[in-house]
Amino acid sequence: MLKQQIGVIGLAVMGKNLALNIESRGYSVAVYNRTFSKTEDFLANEAKGKNIVSRKTIEAFVNVLEKPRKIILMVKAGFATDATIESLHPYLDQGDVLIDGGNTLYEDTLGRNEKLDKTGIHFIGMGVSGGEEGALNGPSLMPGGQREAYDLVEPILGAIAAKVDADSCVTYIGPNGAGHFVKMVHNGIEYGDMQLIAEAYFILKCVLGMNTDELHEVFTEWNKGELDSYLIEITANIFKKKDDQTGKSLIDVILDKAGQKGTGKWTSKNALDLGVPLPLITESVFARFISSQKEERILASRILSGPKEVKYKGDRNQLIEAIRRALYMSKITSYAQGFAQMRAASDEYNWDLKYGDIAMIWRGGCIIRAQFLQKIKEAFDLEPKLDNLMLDPYFKAILENYQSALREVVVVAVEHGIAVPAFASAIAYYDSYRSKDLPANLIQAQRDYFGAHTYERIDKEGVFHSDWF
Amino acid sequence: MLKQQIGVIGLAVMGKNLALNIESRGYSVAVYNRTFSKTEDFLANEAKGKNIVSRKTIEAFVNVLEKPRKIILMVKAGFATDATIESLHPYLDQGDVLIDGGNTLYEDTLGRNEKLDKTGIHFIGMGVSGGEEGALNGPSLMPGGQREAYDLVEPILGAIAAKVDADSCVTYIGPNGAGHFVKMVHNGIEYGDMQLIAEAYFILKCVLGMNTDELHEVFTEWNKGELDSYLIEITANIFKKKDDQTGKSLIDVILDKAGQKGTGKWTSKNALDLGVPLPLITESVFARFISSQKEERILASRILSGPKEVKYKGDRNQLIEAIRRALYMSKITSYAQGFAQMRAASDEYNWDLKYGDIAMIWRGGCIIRAQFLQKIKEAFDLEPKLDNLMLDPYFKAILENYQSALREVVVVAVEHGIAVPAFASAIAYYDSYRSKDLPANLIQAQRDYFGAHTYERIDKEGVFHSDWF
Repeated sequence: MLKQQIGVIGLAVMGKNLALNIESRGYSVAVYNRTFSKTEDFLANEAKGKNIVSRKTIEAFVNVLEKPRKIILMVKAGFATDATIESLHPYLDQGDVLIDGGNTLYEDTLGRNEKLDKTGIHFIGMGVSGGEEGALNGPSLMPGGQREAYDLVEPILGAIAAKVDADSCVTYIGPNGAGHFVKMVHNGIEYGDMQLIAEAYFILKCVLGMNTDELHEVFTEWNKGELDSYLIEITANIFKKKDDQTGKSLIDVILDKAGQKGTGKWTSKNALDLGVPLPLITESVFARFISSQKEERILASRILSGPKEVKYKGDRNQLIEAIRRALYMSKITSYAQGFAQMRAASDEYNWDLKYGDIAMIWRGGCIIRAQFLQKIKEAFDLEPKLDNLMLDPYFKAILENYQSALREVVVVAVEHGIAVPAFASAIAYYDSYRSKDLPANLIQAQRDYFGAHTYERIDKEGVFHSDWF
Repeated sequence: MLKQQIGVIGLAVMGKNLALNIESRGYSVAVYNRTFSKTEDFLANEAKGKNIVSRKTIEAFVNVLEKPRKIILMVKAGFATDATIESLHPYLDQGDVLIDGGNTLYEDTLGRNEKLDKTGIHFIGMGVSGGEEGALNGPSLMPGGQREAYDLVEPILGAIAAKVDADSCVTYIGPNGAGHFVKMVHNGIEYGDMQLIAEAYFILKCVLGMNTDELHEVFTEWNKGELDSYLIEITANIFKKKDDQTGKSLIDVILDKAGQKGTGKWTSKNALDLGVPLPLITESVFARFISSQKEERILASRILSGPKEVKYKGDRNQLIEAIRRALYMSKITSYAQGFAQMRAASDEYNWDLKYGDIAMIWRGGCIIRAQFLQKIKEAFDLEPKLDNLMLDPYFKAILENYQSALREVVVVAVEHGIAVPAFASAIAYYDSYRSKDLPANLIQAQRDYFGAHTYERIDKEGVFHSDWF
């Protein structure tokens, strides 16, 4: 009988939607789920009448696939991934391709790729961004693994990925863990973008007293310019949304406790390990932590006071524009940090990441899709070895023109007692990075003083220690 | 023959000094070092004429110790620690006490304590702070492990630890990894203190144009008040120190690339794992990373500009006092974060940490020793279950009186283009923590919009999802 072209294991919503997406592009699909009833349910409903078959056992599932087999795992990251690979392995042949589309820590992917590669099985760790909707209609895909394995699945991945103009939002990221690593950084950047938007919203609300209609207008306006992006667009829509039950704006009845799935945390921990400064994303992660301490904050709000009542006396529209500029400049510094992190990892693991291509595949399907990713692409086309995005002529010009706005916004927020950890870290990063001299000479002096850790000198090579006492 | 009361393994400078310290308090010591020549050298020199014996083999070393044996390991953390324990184990008896005085990650101590406990061997992971000088004359000791094991060594530890008034800077921290955990947080706090002092120094230098003599005077003054601490004291001394070779102030010829041994990084990663906001220490770690990118900064300084030339027009002495207040307030927020991290770990591992006692043993021997630790002790005496240090009446009063100074200092620095990541994160933490409402409601709305992650409401229990489209 005719074999199916690709298999999907795991029929939670992401797996279902990805299978339907693949089939909709003209590929024959086989599906498998540990709990067979879920498979039957899928076949009887969403998959009804489609070129999707199922098998009850792993063995039968593997045997219904054409060789070399292409199998996408859409199971829970971690134990379930290993268990599934274990159960598959006896039935696989050399040259078969396993693709882990789960939200997997890249170190795990490194290990699995190495282990399976020894047995001749290809293993691709693939970041899949865009949520349920993206999985169904076109996600941004970040596959990493053996190049020859990628070439085998490239037509399918290209067909199911999101499209921007003529381009598919998928590219070969690099060997072993590169795909899941880049997805991790993507998620960290997403944390930063969301925190920056939240801080902008709060200044508009608390300093200018804007209501949700006005906020809707501002973000709608912003989305027409350089900030044009999915997150700005949905933010504008959010302010328009009414609560069915109270008739109020829905945003005003939502509790201010931010949840998370931990991928932002991964990005920050990795930056700490790589020795890469990633303050903006990390402040965004910490901001979610503080937001979740709602009960403590309520208690503290009764005990700790803010600044004396301050009334903003400046021009309203000028501040709105300053906030827009602060948001764009801060976003640039955040991406500069994220791309510097990718560069450090690329050097560490010899991935030879193509930064411009990564920016391109983020233009569609994923949460951080934005116009300005095109500018990042152009920056790396101009200078593939660019040390830091902020040094690119286009971004340099923006930073120079917008820094006064970012400084003003931080000053206004600090004087009004509004917490802006991300905006503040953005200007601190800019001022640190562009400073030939920093006060770290004092830190080195202290370390040599109390711990004989030695120091370098500005006027000659070598390491030195002084008797400070 | 008469047995020795305690053994020390590892004769690098820390081990030597600790052995000499112990012997100087009237205890008989046996030492062992893998390379015997080092042992012979120690016996022939520093240990000459002292009640310190050595043995060439581990077995002979163990047999010269009275039971239950007390052995302090002062070897390189990690592999060497495990290897040493392996080689010791065959010769140990139930009830013997191993003490790891190395700079060990607390998770490793947790594992070793559990493993050895099964064989009846007590294992104490002990943080030792104060460097070479502290080891010799009196360190701050943070021992964690079996309580009964601690009781066996308490007299010796009490004798060798630093003294403040009548108190020894040692206390039982808690089970298994508690001691090394508290030492880790101590080191993270040290990173924060040093970064805050560095930022204060840079504002005084860059905004007020102070020379090293003036800086020496300011820090000497500051050390007479609430900031009275070892780090402020040595900072004052550092500004006085001349370079033998150029005659310049030594601080001005030291390169501004801060090194580190990674323990600050551990603290930040742990806070991310525990879900505890630790922005100030983490910004301090990132600030060291940025400082180490000297070549990139020199390049960037030629490309990226700062704010238009700004001249400080305010009162000089008023700004100096504002910086002093900003420094003290920021220090308080940093310790509030560190103690909150210890509370989270204490809950996570059931350590029942005594926060006031921890503050007390940090008053002497260690790098962060400071007057104000007494205030922390008093805060926890008043309220042992204190959620956050900032809520204590004494600290609350300082924060309320000093917040305008911290705001002013951040504003001045931002307007002058001086990076103050730690000061800025301090005010952001204060304003976040005391805010009943934060803009995280928008983040929850966005997450529910693009990922159906659901949200809570302010007006009723439960989790909710909206169809936003």
